[in-house]
Amino acid sequence: MSSVFNSPNPIFFGRGTSKLTGGKLKEFGCKKVLVIFDKGIKAAGIVDKILDNIKASGIETVLFDKVEPDPPDYIVNEAGALGLAEKVDGLVGIGGGSSMDTAKGARILLTFPAPINRYFGRGDAEPLDERNMKPVIVIPTTAGTGSEATPGGIITDTEKHVKWPIICSVSMAIIDPELTVGLPSGITASTGFDALCHAAEALTSKAHNRISEVLAKEAITLIARNLPVACREGSNIEAREGMSLAATLAGMSLRGPFGGIPHDIGTLLGARYGIPHGTAVGCLLAESMNFIAPVIADKVKIVAECMGAEVPANSTPEEIGIIARNTIRNFYKEVNMPKMKALIPDKQDMLQAEKLFKGTSFTPRALTREHAKEILENSYDAS
Amino acid sequence: MSSVFNSPNPIFFGRGTSKLTGGKLKEFGCKKVLVIFDKGIKAAGIVDKILDNIKASGIETVLFDKVEPDPPDYIVNEAGALGLAEKVDGLVGIGGGSSMDTAKGARILLTFPAPINRYFGRGDAEPLDERNMKPVIVIPTTAGTGSEATPGGIITDTEKHVKWPIICSVSMAIIDPELTVGLPSGITASTGFDALCHAAEALTSKAHNRISEVLAKEAITLIARNLPVACREGSNIEAREGMSLAATLAGMSLRGPFGGIPHDIGTLLGARYGIPHGTAVGCLLAESMNFIAPVIADKVKIVAECMGAEVPANSTPEEIGIIARNTIRNFYKEVNMPKMKALIPDKQDMLQAEKLFKGTSFTPRALTREHAKEILENSYDAS
Repeated sequence: MSSVFNSPNPIFFGRGTSKLTGGKLKEFGCKKVLVIFDKGIKAAGIVDKILDNIKASGIETVLFDKVEPDPPDYIVNEAGALGLAEKVDGLVGIGGGSSMDTAKGARILLTFPAPINRYFGRGDAEPLDERNMKPVIVIPTTAGTGSEATPGGIITDTEKHVKWPIICSVSMAIIDPELTVGLPSGITASTGFDALCHAAEALTSKAHNRISEVLAKEAITLIARNLPVACREGSNIEAREGMSLAATLAGMSLRGPFGGIPHDIGTLLGARYGIPHGTAVGCLLAESMNFIAPVIADKVKIVAECMGAEVPANSTPEEIGIIARNTIRNFYKEVNMPKMKALIPDKQDMLQAEKLFKGTSFTPRALTREHAKEILENSYDAS
Repeated sequence: MSSVFNSPNPIFFGRGTSKLTGGKLKEFGCKKVLVIFDKGIKAAGIVDKILDNIKASGIETVLFDKVEPDPPDYIVNEAGALGLAEKVDGLVGIGGGSSMDTAKGARILLTFPAPINRYFGRGDAEPLDERNMKPVIVIPTTAGTGSEATPGGIITDTEKHVKWPIICSVSMAIIDPELTVGLPSGITASTGFDALCHAAEALTSKAHNRISEVLAKEAITLIARNLPVACREGSNIEAREGMSLAATLAGMSLRGPFGGIPHDIGTLLGARYGIPHGTAVGCLLAESMNFIAPVIADKVKIVAECMGAEVPANSTPEEIGIIARNTIRNFYKEVNMPKMKALIPDKQDMLQAEKLFKGTSFTPRALTREHAKEILENSYDAS
């Protein structure tokens, strides 16, 4: 099983590129744009600089600062309604995955009828016709989600308490590593682990493909080299640039392979215990790689080697799994990712939570309920 | 100056993927497709297998076997007219760049008025609205052109004797390395050098970008490792697969940076003396890298290192240029690329041909007429 590598959106990458936002919006023909972000990003001073830049290009701005983590449907609906009321002709999403996904959702609602819930998990449905959609530029301020390089978003259905994918591409991503300089060490590590999971899951997916593999390998190599530095010295711009590039490459690498065990179980874990996404998926990566190694050792070996591990030539698949597991465990500790027991006080509650054990689709090794429990328990004990 | 990395089309890569052509066309909703190729590819038995596969999916085929090198406008017009007369609802291009570019041109003419000449070099013009275009799948049978991963084509204006770019994306590329197994050694080397130039030019373009750089580095590394093997042992499928992947990555890497000196001068050289494209550009690569090294040594160093050269840490830009030049010269000889004097008997004619000295746009070092002459002369003497 191989998959089709599909196109990411146009990507404008580099230090200082956010200073060109206004110019790019102008190229898209925008005159008045809805700018979507959260209050934290605003307080960090990132939004104002970009707003000034947009205004300097003669483009009006309408502000929406209510983005919340795990973007709730009603927030997306509110953003869309504001954009319609203000008759904007474009959007900008500034922030982490939540801001970018809220912007994608709002983009849909500028052209198609509300509420956003109509467009949840359309899967096999005809994709929305994007021809008449207004342009949207997304500007990540973390290095992790990869939402800047994928046409998907995740929105929370607040009535049914579940998360749903929406499909909406972006017109351009502007990735300026300078915007991530002020990111605290904990968020840097957590979002960085999200990117590491994306790349490792893409590489070991049963729907992997060779183009994706090239991107994932480079992403893992960059993360291993740059994440510890970015966590220790937040203003090290080389490390920040390496991480921003890695996150984007990792996002791109998912086009085709989709995700694996860490995202399949981790997102459920995150929702149940209110754990930040990158941490919830990252804490399961080491054990997940060990679990799949017996059936896909060659790819797990690449993950370990890109992280700097030495894998002896005659290693068995099981030995490769253990090397990968230990390498990732050490890396998890090196960047001070939290212990699972600090996040989930009651291990038994976690192991008995039925909701954590739904099946996985793109994992090369079939995952039973018992396997999932084992991965969770081992991750818990080792972290 | 950095550039926007733009999306390639969906890519389906891997051994045996051409056996899925019919299924993919069906997914696009096709019932009758125009299949475009040249007689050589047909004689090699490649077309028949794919035709059988398309028919097995219940899709009718209309054949167009008149593709010529440096696709002439009238051939493209003829292909388009056949497609319209037969009321096809999709296209397939099988072959090297000429077949793929002819298919792109014919795709335009199924929706927009003939002749293809109307769409030459539109540059700043509004891109054609692709919404109502019929789907086209391209299937490369060489590993070089990268046309499978770009929305551009090059068509010859037979009245004015010049080549023009057209812009037309493809719906999907199916890249099956098994189709390249029968390629003779000389064509393998020449097309492989085309890909090497794409990657080296992308990496050293003044409009380079970091995503492109990742792809270009991997492409060069793969070519250095696989091209000599693919030339020596044509049926070595690992080497063929490495080259097919490299050519696609190299094509993708050009999205944003565009080309450099080898393509700028080489295409003119090729047209004047009827030299195969890959040879005409490839014979200039070594000297071109040496010429730009003084202003972009860090990137020329990457080219040399990806090709296996050892570059001492304290090398000057000029020394890096010489190392890169020698590495590429040796590689050129290793894969038995032809001596320039075998292709162009009269060196003075070449050096006096005004048509070879038009300016270049994306080269990091300004190229005067004298510089261009020097590159041509040194290339000639050294090959």
